[in-house]
Amino acid sequence: MKLTLKEIAQKIDGKVIGDEALEIYGVSSFDDAESGDITFASDAKFLKNLHNTRAGAVIVPDDFGDIVSVYPSLIKTLNPKRKFFRILSLFHPPTEPSKIIAQGSVTGINFVAGDDLTIGHHVTIGDNVTMGERVHIMHGVYIGDHVAIGDDTVIKPNVTIMERTRVGSRVIIHSGTVIGSDGFGFTQEMAEGYHEKIPHAGFVHIDDDVEIGACNTIDRGTFGGTWIGKGVKTDNLVHIAHNVTIGEHSLIVAQVGIAGSSVIGKRVILAGKAGVSGHLTVGDGAIVGPGAGVLSDVQPGQIVSGVPGMPHKVWLKVASILPTLPEIRKRVLKLERKENNEKPGGS
Amino acid sequence: MKLTLKEIAQKIDGKVIGDEALEIYGVSSFDDAESGDITFASDAKFLKNLHNTRAGAVIVPDDFGDIVSVYPSLIKTLNPKRKFFRILSLFHPPTEPSKIIAQGSVTGINFVAGDDLTIGHHVTIGDNVTMGERVHIMHGVYIGDHVAIGDDTVIKPNVTIMERTRVGSRVIIHSGTVIGSDGFGFTQEMAEGYHEKIPHAGFVHIDDDVEIGACNTIDRGTFGGTWIGKGVKTDNLVHIAHNVTIGEHSLIVAQVGIAGSSVIGKRVILAGKAGVSGHLTVGDGAIVGPGAGVLSDVQPGQIVSGVPGMPHKVWLKVASILPTLPEIRKRVLKLERKENNEKPGGS
Amino acid sequence: MKLTLKEIAQKIDGKVIGDEALEIYGVSSFDDAESGDITFASDAKFLKNLHNTRAGAVIVPDDFGDIVSVYPSLIKTLNPKRKFFRILSLFHPPTEPSKIIAQGSVTGINFVAGDDLTIGHHVTIGDNVTMGERVHIMHGVYIGDHVAIGDDTVIKPNVTIMERTRVGSRVIIHSGTVIGSDGFGFTQEMAEGYHEKIPHAGFVHIDDDVEIGACNTIDRGTFGGTWIGKGVKTDNLVHIAHNVTIGEHSLIVAQVGIAGSSVIGKRVILAGKAGVSGHLTVGDGAIVGPGAGVLSDVQPGQIVSGVPGMPHKVWLKVASILPTLPEIRKRVLKLERKENNEKPGGS
Repeated sequence: MKLTLKEIAQKIDGKVIGDEALEIYGVSSFDDAESGDITFASDAKFLKNLHNTRAGAVIVPDDFGDIVSVYPSLIKTLNPKRKFFRILSLFHPPTEPSKIIAQGSVTGINFVAGDDLTIGHHVTIGDNVTMGERVHIMHGVYIGDHVAIGDDTVIKPNVTIMERTRVGSRVIIHSGTVIGSDGFGFTQEMAEGYHEKIPHAGFVHIDDDVEIGACNTIDRGTFGGTWIGKGVKTDNLVHIAHNVTIGEHSLIVAQVGIAGSSVIGKRVILAGKAGVSGHLTVGDGAIVGPGAGVLSDVQPGQIVSGVPGMPHKVWLKVASILPTLPEIRKRVLKLERKENNEKPGGS
Repeated sequence: MKLTLKEIAQKIDGKVIGDEALEIYGVSSFDDAESGDITFASDAKFLKNLHNTRAGAVIVPDDFGDIVSVYPSLIKTLNPKRKFFRILSLFHPPTEPSKIIAQGSVTGINFVAGDDLTIGHHVTIGDNVTMGERVHIMHGVYIGDHVAIGDDTVIKPNVTIMERTRVGSRVIIHSGTVIGSDGFGFTQEMAEGYHEKIPHAGFVHIDDDVEIGACNTIDRGTFGGTWIGKGVKTDNLVHIAHNVTIGEHSLIVAQVGIAGSSVIGKRVILAGKAGVSGHLTVGDGAIVGPGAGVLSDVQPGQIVSGVPGMPHKVWLKVASILPTLPEIRKRVLKLERKENNEKPGGS
Repeated sequence: MKLTLKEIAQKIDGKVIGDEALEIYGVSSFDDAESGDITFASDAKFLKNLHNTRAGAVIVPDDFGDIVSVYPSLIKTLNPKRKFFRILSLFHPPTEPSKIIAQGSVTGINFVAGDDLTIGHHVTIGDNVTMGERVHIMHGVYIGDHVAIGDDTVIKPNVTIMERTRVGSRVIIHSGTVIGSDGFGFTQEMAEGYHEKIPHAGFVHIDDDVEIGACNTIDRGTFGGTWIGKGVKTDNLVHIAHNVTIGEHSLIVAQVGIAGSSVIGKRVILAGKAGVSGHLTVGDGAIVGPGAGVLSDVQPGQIVSGVPGMPHKVWLKVASILPTLPEIRKRVLKLERKENNEKPGGS
């Protein structure tokens, strides 16, 4: 595959500075690019080093100063990084699905699906399942009874989706993930020495444009739903307990755990390995730092870090002072000794 | 499905206060219930707001004060919450298994199983496997050679059970979980620059009434067993290393990790994201707080929190003071300045 | 089959003492050999009894003393025993290699595999996949297009290996693990309220002698590779993000998370539950303690512990003093009170 610089510029609303006829054969990073590649530079660090890339062309911001004679050639456009990824998609289109239900895969009764369905090998689909258009279910996936899936959704290999889960359109669920497992709910019979399982009659709702990473576990509600809002993205090995709600466009980074019934707002970021206790509210736009332990509500827009979770600016100071704690203790002891030596009668 | 209030009361040893003939069509939470639903109220917060639920009937404690004219109708009984979940199970019975070994699933030589066996699609069962009565193995499960499984056990889709694992009766293993993977054991050849794998000749034993969450990893013993005691419940994404023992009725919450050869007592609670180092003992009835890092033995009944793990009451104080550490440091500096100013000759 | 002594000598870097044209029809032990056979003698017991074998030729050490008139003929070479087994292999090639592909498992176009391949049940292998000798793929595994696997590698049940992954020789990948899932990469469009997926055009490279634990998630590079070096061992539930590099013979313990583009050196140990932020370097031979949060580069050989990560010796002191923080605070308050009481005019 190849495109001229002119063709690329047209696809990203850009303006070529340099050789419009230049043929581009691939995309690469600033440092790895070769002469047939296009790359991008969006900040000063790269923009002042354009002469150091071997790329044939570089996508730069539209307010980048004019240069008369240029090598490499440039395309000026708004938001070079996003435009670059659009070009990357052109050169690396997703593999064309093979438009089949693989022999040996099993579908239950009342299975209804739209056009261009692709079901890989060794798949089991339960009863009363509905799917929209262009859905792609890959190898080894299990889909339980009464599951509904929207359009253009891709379920990667070896995913498990238990009964009554609702999955929206343009959703991607990565391999190994389990949706709709029973929540960790037991009536507390510690006195009697055992725990009695609470039935989990609820479901999981995954809204449109969600991407769920690999090996996530998203439990069904005890009643009602565990709710993953529109546009939410989760990284790998994330745990979302029963009856959690995650608002639109929030980002949940790898190895985060969210305990039962907590409500995460819209456009929240939970950084890697953060933990949120049960029955809490994390307000819209809040940010929880890596590894932070959230044990109480977080206000909208607040940035919380550390263990226990505290305002991020406070945590930055605490974190910088913590390694000096032994020194602080010594100084307190020294002050006490002075005090006692000088005023031996003091209490 | 519908039941009269009288029928429901009979099933839970309760007494109807109100309309015995009332027909109930479902169960729901206090806030979401509609007129055909039954719900429960077990503490003051809900009991004093009975007029605010739209539920047709509410299960209340048997010592709840008599009311002459009631709406909604009530059922008075011991332990309303547990009784409520019993009713929930009536309205949401588990899907009846279809009593088959699915075509295409594979069983090895010397496979012995009790009545009412159900094996889903795309299952592989190795040689010399035995199963009790009413076992249900779901889609995509792998069961290695010489595995033994008791009665009424359910293995959810895409679980992997490696060779020689023993699984008791009434066990539930959720999807994506791996039982019997090799432990993380290598002879230390760091000086020579590589690690040599130790063979793992042991097994995993899972006792009766255990429930294992989704995407757990439970490693086999190096020799002998990794041992999960009767009634233990694990949440999702839990890691249990080789040769760990977990005592009866302990609760292991999501994302906990237990390192090799540690012994967890009976009725212990390890809260979410807690970590227990190797070769430690956590005594019976101990509680380890969320995210706590246990680096030394925990006494029976002790409550440990924080990083590093410390007595819970200490951690509560430490956690509340930690955000003021910068302030404490300032005050120490101020005291030192005063000391030096007033006695400039002081060291 | 027959070979002249000259031909045999050439194959084992040997020198013929005797009849180079002698035709050899087989191999046998010193005592059983006949005149058409070749045998070997590597220690004094046999070397001083050369006249007692009926073999036509004997392979002897290259420092064996010269003899003028010889029967049998000799081939002098280094390590006669090993060379003898090489000749044995020539005369007795292994029986026709077995390729056991379980019925129902599916292989794509252009599938090329070496001898002694074993593929379990319910496996799907994509197009243009190559495998070396003695590879073992177990139940339920998915292998995407353009994957290459070396010799003697074992892929345990229910593993997912996405397209373009490269797996070396003598690698073990445990169950439930996902290799080559998309990295967690989105262009930041928070202002506009949504996140746009970055295509992941890269791959995962797993070098020789690597062992990957159960339920790991190893994301593919955005461009280029996520790189797991020779001899690396990972425990269970480990997360390795896009474009991470792990150097040779490093050990990554359970539930560790490594964020995008970080570079872990050679012979590094990351203890259980440690977290490494993105775009960092952990130097060769460094050790990161259990649960430590690494937020900045770690120097080669450094030992880092705690949250935030600090030199291990410092952390040991901090960790021992931390539980006394409330006591330290009290003592500071007491000092302040004294100061104020004695000098009430003080600020």
